[in-house]
Amino acid sequence: MLGGACTYISLAASYFTPVHIVGVVGEDFRQEDAGLLASRSIDLEGLERAPGKTFFWSGVYSADMNDRTTLCTDLNVFADFRPKLPERYRSQPYLLLGNIQPALQRDVKRQMTGLRLAGGDTMNFWIQGSREELLETIRDWDFLLINDTEARLLSGEYMLRRAAEVILGMGPRILVIKRGEYGAVLFHSAGHFLVPGYLLGRVFDPTGAGDSFAGGFIGYLAEQGAGREAGDRKLRNAVVYGSVMGSFCCEQFGVDRFRTLTRAEIDERFREFKTCTEF
Amino acid sequence: MLGGACTYISLAASYFTPVHIVGVVGEDFRQEDAGLLASRSIDLEGLERAPGKTFFWSGVYSADMNDRTTLCTDLNVFADFRPKLPERYRSQPYLLLGNIQPALQRDVKRQMTGLRLAGGDTMNFWIQGSREELLETIRDWDFLLINDTEARLLSGEYMLRRAAEVILGMGPRILVIKRGEYGAVLFHSAGHFLVPGYLLGRVFDPTGAGDSFAGGFIGYLAEQGAGREAGDRKLRNAVVYGSVMGSFCCEQFGVDRFRTLTRAEIDERFREFKTCTEF
Repeated sequence: MLGGACTYISLAASYFTPVHIVGVVGEDFRQEDAGLLASRSIDLEGLERAPGKTFFWSGVYSADMNDRTTLCTDLNVFADFRPKLPERYRSQPYLLLGNIQPALQRDVKRQMTGLRLAGGDTMNFWIQGSREELLETIRDWDFLLINDTEARLLSGEYMLRRAAEVILGMGPRILVIKRGEYGAVLFHSAGHFLVPGYLLGRVFDPTGAGDSFAGGFIGYLAEQGAGREAGDRKLRNAVVYGSVMGSFCCEQFGVDRFRTLTRAEIDERFREFKTCTEF
Repeated sequence: MLGGACTYISLAASYFTPVHIVGVVGEDFRQEDAGLLASRSIDLEGLERAPGKTFFWSGVYSADMNDRTTLCTDLNVFADFRPKLPERYRSQPYLLLGNIQPALQRDVKRQMTGLRLAGGDTMNFWIQGSREELLETIRDWDFLLINDTEARLLSGEYMLRRAAEVILGMGPRILVIKRGEYGAVLFHSAGHFLVPGYLLGRVFDPTGAGDSFAGGFIGYLAEQGAGREAGDRKLRNAVVYGSVMGSFCCEQFGVDRFRTLTRAEIDERFREFKTCTEF
């Protein structure tokens, strides 16, 4: 079924701000799936259609949903992907770079002409296999969003507080470490902020939760018009909105929750996070 | 070195309220260790000295401190322990029952004459091996403090929200589920409250953290004079004070942190929890 980082990020962000995507799909990409994105007013001009099949991933989750085993990763048209930005995308102020080869992330960022806030995601594969290229890439990012395992691998430190110090020393001014069902931690010059994970009644499918988090995070900041100098309060809210979007994503299979989700439900859950954590 | 649930619970609680302990040690119990407890004004009248050796446990923690392997458990004098309450203990208003055979916990509670708030801890061993006896015991507890694995085992439910519903149906009106480094969750009739774990710079030794949590929790409620009808706000604060005490416990080996810890440091960390979680 429809999936992928760009899909989840754009769906989640679309509740907060207009979204323009850059990505590649194959000839098998369904019109119905493009229709879902379009129904959320996501700009598809940068969605390239290439000869061949769309990227495909399948996997199996452990009973507690905390681990997953990849059954199959077919790069297909993604293997030769070189992101091309439509001309009118270049002046956009907010940029979220999904998890691809760091050199490609750098190329995309270089094409942007008026960024107010830029950052992105990466993964073990690049941290271990393209470390220097990755370090060169994230050096001028405003924010980095990674999970705890990646933060430990990138920093060489086990304790998150120390890992964050090392990573902030690599360039990004804002670091968000995602901890799956246990929430997330924001680190920046004003200190750190801890948000616990939303207690779901059941987890149906955690696929895309981290990407939905990223979409909520950047979407909220864009809605607020926040730039590199975004204050602690706005960044905290962005992390909570990220958590909210990640929690909704898990409630149904794949992207299905986004077919019915409303902004009112999102704001209600934001308030619920406050109610459940304040003392 | 000195250890055990009663030790950690009483040391942690002693920062909030006078503490009277009931327990058993052998002939090898060191005067210096009794001295540490006495230095915190802990009443040792109920500390029985029996012929033989003191209970002994040793284990090895995994590199990430989230798992431990028991190397050795010698029950020694604990094997035949029958708690005897000194006469003047019986009218105490607050009771925390450490993790022992549920029938013994029940006997102790029966001897108390003026309880305002009572509850305690249990473990896998009793949940699996003495289930009926345990259910009979916790039926009239005001609160139950257990970890996530125990909550899942006791309830038969994986998701904590469902597990809590099942456990609250067993009798306790207040349930606190401890999640190690990831914090804790309070469940009661007013809803639930999530507190993330304190982000330590390093973990030196997590032994006793859960018991220190329990001591901070009941100690704070006793200090506040809170009874069974304790409101949501007080219970939330109690869970945070529990988290504070658990976090300090990890900072040094064994009970060492309690040799220098002050109430001012405790209240400062309570404020730090607020600063790090509010939005």
